[in-house]
Amino acid sequence: MTMTEDRLASQIAFIVEIDKLKQVLRQNVVTDRSRQENAAEHSWHLAMMAITMSEHAAPEVDPRRVLKMLLIHDLVEIDAGDTFLYDPAAAAGQAAREAAAAERLYALLPADQAAALKALWLEFDCSDSPDARFARALDQLQPVLLNYHTEGGSWRAHAVSGADVLAKKRVIEHGSPTLWRYAEALIRDSITKGWLR
Amino acid sequence: MTMTEDRLASQIAFIVEIDKLKQVLRQNVVTDRSRQENAAEHSWHLAMMAITMSEHAAPEVDPRRVLKMLLIHDLVEIDAGDTFLYDPAAAAGQAAREAAAAERLYALLPADQAAALKALWLEFDCSDSPDARFARALDQLQPVLLNYHTEGGSWRAHAVSGADVLAKKRVIEHGSPTLWRYAEALIRDSITKGWLR
Repeated sequence: MTMTEDRLASQIAFIVEIDKLKQVLRQNVVTDRSRQENAAEHSWHLAMMAITMSEHAAPEVDPRRVLKMLLIHDLVEIDAGDTFLYDPAAAAGQAAREAAAAERLYALLPADQAAALKALWLEFDCSDSPDARFARALDQLQPVLLNYHTEGGSWRAHAVSGADVLAKKRVIEHGSPTLWRYAEALIRDSITKGWLR
Repeated sequence: MTMTEDRLASQIAFIVEIDKLKQVLRQNVVTDRSRQENAAEHSWHLAMMAITMSEHAAPEVDPRRVLKMLLIHDLVEIDAGDTFLYDPAAAAGQAAREAAAAERLYALLPADQAAALKALWLEFDCSDSPDARFARALDQLQPVLLNYHTEGGSWRAHAVSGADVLAKKRVIEHGSPTLWRYAEALIRDSITKGWLR
């Protein structure tokens, strides 16, 4: 094989493997309430938010890096599974499971691409960079939209409290005060409507 | 409302509306064969191909434009539905249905964003630009990968002929000769294995 063919074979192996993200179910349901959302379509939805809503980020944010971060941010769930935000028991061991998943999955790619994407995922997961803060804000806002537009969705199903949601979702403010004002209004309205305990 | 709040409200309305793309089913199945793929997760998968495989595009291709094109390319299917590549009857009226869908959906966004995204979709759908050619190559390659890795998948389910697939998929070559060589080998192997008529 030529080097180009060799690299392409690695890239295809990676692309075929990550098809499995379509099987990772999240807690929230899609807006027609027919089923739970999966992590692949969730990632697409976040990418569309990055494309349309980046004007609400701090000026130093690079929307193209945010877009890539959001497309890859859940890949580790192929091995590590989705962790429900309001379940502290599930969070135990999550970091170690996700680090092992990143090692395995990105190693399928050519080494230069593996290193670049793993670094971008680590930045999303662990750092306080402006890009990571805005990416996390979108990741936290999207389920608020789905829960609000399904009359409480997974919040009601799990009897989550309004105080818990306000505390956990406040991280949106670090990425975008504008998005946080919007999210906070939806959460407070959900409390008023009885969709949140 | 301030102008910022007004724009955000439009963007959120668009984001909530396009959640419906998760309900648009395609003919091919996902790799574990449990169900048909939907257009939202397909779009995510293509975006991941754009991120990892752009080195196989012509040098004048802008990977960032390709990435955006692929994320939005199927939005019109929310209204127009998915058209199976090997069903000529379904193709009748498809262009008019998709144009009407683009009018309705993008109009939810602020006017500047609506114009930019609609133009990008039109470029993907109708033009011979290098970016559009490479985006279409990825869009055509992805179902070949899924069909190959499910022992024929939707090809077998619909008794599609190898000659038809070779003819329809040759468009990949206009976007990337390297990707076409890879795809052609998979298609020929599928014929040998009896997955294609």
